[in-house]
Amino acid sequence: MKPEASNIHFVAPRRVAIIGAGLLGGSFGLALRELMNQPTGGSGKDVEIIGVSRSAASRDAALQSGAVTSATDCVEDACQNADLIVIAVPVDGIVAMVHRSVNHCADDAMVMDLGSTKASIVRAIDQNERASRLFVGAHPIAGSEKTGASFARADLFENKTVVLTPGARTPASLVQRATALWRAVRANVICMSAEQHDQAMASVSHVPHIVASMLAGILKRDSAQHDAVSLVGSGWLDTTRVASGDPDLWTAICRENSAAIQSELTSAIDWLTQFSSKLNGEDFAAVRELLLQSQIVRDQVLAAKQR
Amino acid sequence: MKPEASNIHFVAPRRVAIIGAGLLGGSFGLALRELMNQPTGGSGKDVEIIGVSRSAASRDAALQSGAVTSATDCVEDACQNADLIVIAVPVDGIVAMVHRSVNHCADDAMVMDLGSTKASIVRAIDQNERASRLFVGAHPIAGSEKTGASFARADLFENKTVVLTPGARTPASLVQRATALWRAVRANVICMSAEQHDQAMASVSHVPHIVASMLAGILKRDSAQHDAVSLVGSGWLDTTRVASGDPDLWTAICRENSAAIQSELTSAIDWLTQFSSKLNGEDFAAVRELLLQSQIVRDQVLAAKQR
Repeated sequence: MKPEASNIHFVAPRRVAIIGAGLLGGSFGLALRELMNQPTGGSGKDVEIIGVSRSAASRDAALQSGAVTSATDCVEDACQNADLIVIAVPVDGIVAMVHRSVNHCADDAMVMDLGSTKASIVRAIDQNERASRLFVGAHPIAGSEKTGASFARADLFENKTVVLTPGARTPASLVQRATALWRAVRANVICMSAEQHDQAMASVSHVPHIVASMLAGILKRDSAQHDAVSLVGSGWLDTTRVASGDPDLWTAICRENSAAIQSELTSAIDWLTQFSSKLNGEDFAAVRELLLQSQIVRDQVLAAKQR
Repeated sequence: MKPEASNIHFVAPRRVAIIGAGLLGGSFGLALRELMNQPTGGSGKDVEIIGVSRSAASRDAALQSGAVTSATDCVEDACQNADLIVIAVPVDGIVAMVHRSVNHCADDAMVMDLGSTKASIVRAIDQNERASRLFVGAHPIAGSEKTGASFARADLFENKTVVLTPGARTPASLVQRATALWRAVRANVICMSAEQHDQAMASVSHVPHIVASMLAGILKRDSAQHDAVSLVGSGWLDTTRVASGDPDLWTAICRENSAAIQSELTSAIDWLTQFSSKLNGEDFAAVRELLLQSQIVRDQVLAAKQR
């Protein structure tokens, strides 16, 4: 579902807190500052962007990248009177951070996360009156296996999809405000339920990540496999790229979206078992058919993305 | 094992037959022609490069790309007096093509395939006295999911690894000649047994391909999955890239390297089953450890490749 296009106008924030100023949070800061410096950015040129990180190195990286105008380790200080709070911490820390934020931010603030799982977060926030009135879940389908503000880019969200997952009590005006903000940084916004989002992400992101880890994991590192490493080509490197992602972030994702991931993993194992059995039975017509059906799906998805 | 560096000199061929002038064969032709046009290419400037394809469209593409100087559908005509024969057909057609070639080529010819499986080919060739004296198996770890000479590139082999897999009866001089040829087109040459090659390729290429197909295959194309397609990001696209490869080529690879592939598929299924069981048991320390070990392997391989 695409949000209504009419009556959606971007309102520049005055004071922004970015909690967790890593790759995503830092890129959001850079994109916002670039937006403010455009002629149409208007009065927002002197927007304050406060980065929050526990580690001094992360705060330094965020400041040095230009993603934030100041940095602190205190969530409450950063949120004080903020009218936009962006929560870009690992998914298992988001709910607690929303609750801390809403107690200190302005009454007309928008609190938004950038997490790649949504259902358990949206469910938890729906239990709290003030939080559910100020919070909207967002997931920009952007990023990479790299982490940290030093990899942040102002154009990270350009032409990328951002999914908004409003809960039962999220005001429509908040969804419109979030939509306008993401469109202003040139992202494509779609809305769906948090449950739909999580099920879909299990199949297009979470299980592909686990499968990429598997491919790297079964490449044993003993000397007998030295041959294998020297034969690695672009196929293996691309297929396993995401396996270089942060294990802590991905453990949190697995925890938060466990049921959908397990159901997709079952499909994955079933497919491979079927393929192996066809191969073992020398049923090469069936092997070809499996490869062909997958080629068709992949080419269709690629065509849809390039449209 | 790296071949001896000393006494390896590139001798320009006079008449080359490229059987199957698609992406790999066409790129070989382009690379060879570029080499011949260099000042050091010497007298080879008027080398004949004859492309062989059954389909008129493939012959046209090869001619148009500049990969060949002439094209025919007759293997025997092309091989007549050729001193270099490059066989770039799907792996299950290579042995028959070697046998047809050796009956017509010059007595001092080198016959080389470019297939991505080796053991069954090398075993079969070893049975034939003339073929085993003229043939050396080669596998350039290069290419892409694209097919056809229109995607051929003169620099496809630059800085890529080429594996030579001499059989029991392959003359050492032939291995040296093949080494010199590949080095001349700026590839890195390594030698190993065909069995080692096939086992290693199962883990770094064949099973990654099958796993990429699986990921595309389980993304069901019904309307319920419409959400999933709109959430596809660079992770899914990279992880599944090779699944766009030609199903016929890959069915042939699965057939030729079936045993090694089945053994690797068992490891793949075991890893995923273990992961799923840890997730189901909420053993997130074990989940993290699996992701961490894989991250370490991937980063080590990447570092080794970039060295």
